[in-house]
Amino acid sequence: MLSGEIQIRVRYAETDRMGLLHHANYLVYFEQARTELLRQQGASYKDLEDQGYYLVIAKVEIKYKSPAYYDDLLTIRTTVLRTTPVRIEHRYEVFREGVLICEGTTTLACVDKQGRLQAMPRWLMEAK
Amino acid sequence: MLSGEIQIRVRYAETDRMGLLHHANYLVYFEQARTELLRQQGASYKDLEDQGYYLVIAKVEIKYKSPAYYDDLLTIRTTVLRTTPVRIEHRYEVFREGVLICEGTTTLACVDKQGRLQAMPRWLMEAK
Amino acid sequence: MLSGEIQIRVRYAETDRMGLLHHANYLVYFEQARTELLRQQGASYKDLEDQGYYLVIAKVEIKYKSPAYYDDLLTIRTTVLRTTPVRIEHRYEVFREGVLICEGTTTLACVDKQGRLQAMPRWLMEAK
Amino acid sequence: MLSGEIQIRVRYAETDRMGLLHHANYLVYFEQARTELLRQQGASYKDLEDQGYYLVIAKVEIKYKSPAYYDDLLTIRTTVLRTTPVRIEHRYEVFREGVLICEGTTTLACVDKQGRLQAMPRWLMEAK
Repeated sequence: MLSGEIQIRVRYAETDRMGLLHHANYLVYFEQARTELLRQQGASYKDLEDQGYYLVIAKVEIKYKSPAYYDDLLTIRTTVLRTTPVRIEHRYEVFREGVLICEGTTTLACVDKQGRLQAMPRWLMEAK
Repeated sequence: MLSGEIQIRVRYAETDRMGLLHHANYLVYFEQARTELLRQQGASYKDLEDQGYYLVIAKVEIKYKSPAYYDDLLTIRTTVLRTTPVRIEHRYEVFREGVLICEGTTTLACVDKQGRLQAMPRWLMEAK
Repeated sequence: MLSGEIQIRVRYAETDRMGLLHHANYLVYFEQARTELLRQQGASYKDLEDQGYYLVIAKVEIKYKSPAYYDDLLTIRTTVLRTTPVRIEHRYEVFREGVLICEGTTTLACVDKQGRLQAMPRWLMEAK
Repeated sequence: MLSGEIQIRVRYAETDRMGLLHHANYLVYFEQARTELLRQQGASYKDLEDQGYYLVIAKVEIKYKSPAYYDDLLTIRTTVLRTTPVRIEHRYEVFREGVLICEGTTTLACVDKQGRLQAMPRWLMEAK
């Protein structure tokens, strides 16, 4: 299965009153992680949009196991779990000093500019 | 079951390149919605934290059905699904002009300042 | 001079490790405040964009006097300081329990979809 | 004068309905840029806070010259303009493909946990 890793440092603005990475920001990290996975394959999500293919989020699941803190350098491992002509499912694992602190999955749907489902480019569906 | 509604207007800064409410912001709205549900019962989450009870997120599930747009006035209905001494489960339904566009659930765990599980105050667990 | 007030409650996600409203979010509040001022005059910034007029930020100045905290209900007073055919200058004053905690000004430029300066609609320039 | 550069890629969640980097996020980038400048000198802002020194924002000025777009890899050059025992002034220049698109300055004040002004550590004030 196609898989890749990136590192993201927790910014001050992303922490909250508890001193932790606010839980909504994991979705922002996941998005960046799958974008970089695409880039590692030589493609750019920006180009994809400019060609009329929009990957919109349909479903999210996240399990938070331990917190992340300000200035942590986190590792996010992204794996493509499944693709159909109109959907991609990713899994994300977030590591802090080697320990898995968060797991998530997202399902993206491929739509056109008007938001109607459309088949994604073949190369994207077959990316391995 | 305990339930309540609030309205939130989509801010410009919360939209993205597609012109839609960015999907991470639904978690911010859910958080505000459950905070206001608590306030409707005469309690304040801020006071709860100041008394040493922290409700941290353990699990999230969201299904996005249709997009929300800039300047939309959304209605978020929050329902307490289940409480145990150390956990609360909420369901959220987001409506745009009467149409359900997004559904989610969160599980919160009650911890102390050091992040250890602790029983929540009795009044909170028994809130109906 | 045209002026108006709105109230915004500080969200958990908008606080940071210090427990304060993170300083970048004041710009988000200012934006919402000037949008609501426009709405009070019977206009909508969304419609303005849909008609091809984009108000982009050219300049910002903010003086932070005292912090705002989680769950504070802040008052933001917005005043139109000056308009020219292609620019609008607003002043913002943020109050917490009647005390001025932050002051700012922004200069917006009116551009078309391609980002070229264009005169704003006459009614907007003459708004009093 | 002490100076350094970092690169930040514009995330999808940081764009807005116009397809541009939302103007509030420049403050988040500035904050990350001065944090990394500190790290280049062998210090960590996190440690500084853990030792009881908080650098809070007192003043901001930003001039936006040209927009930044989704997925741009921006360069932020940070320079320490001036230090006094209780204040630091930074200048920021944001470059996109070699072109200066945004300039800003911030003034930070050094306070203790209660928010009272205090002299910053000598090494920080004398950083060159």
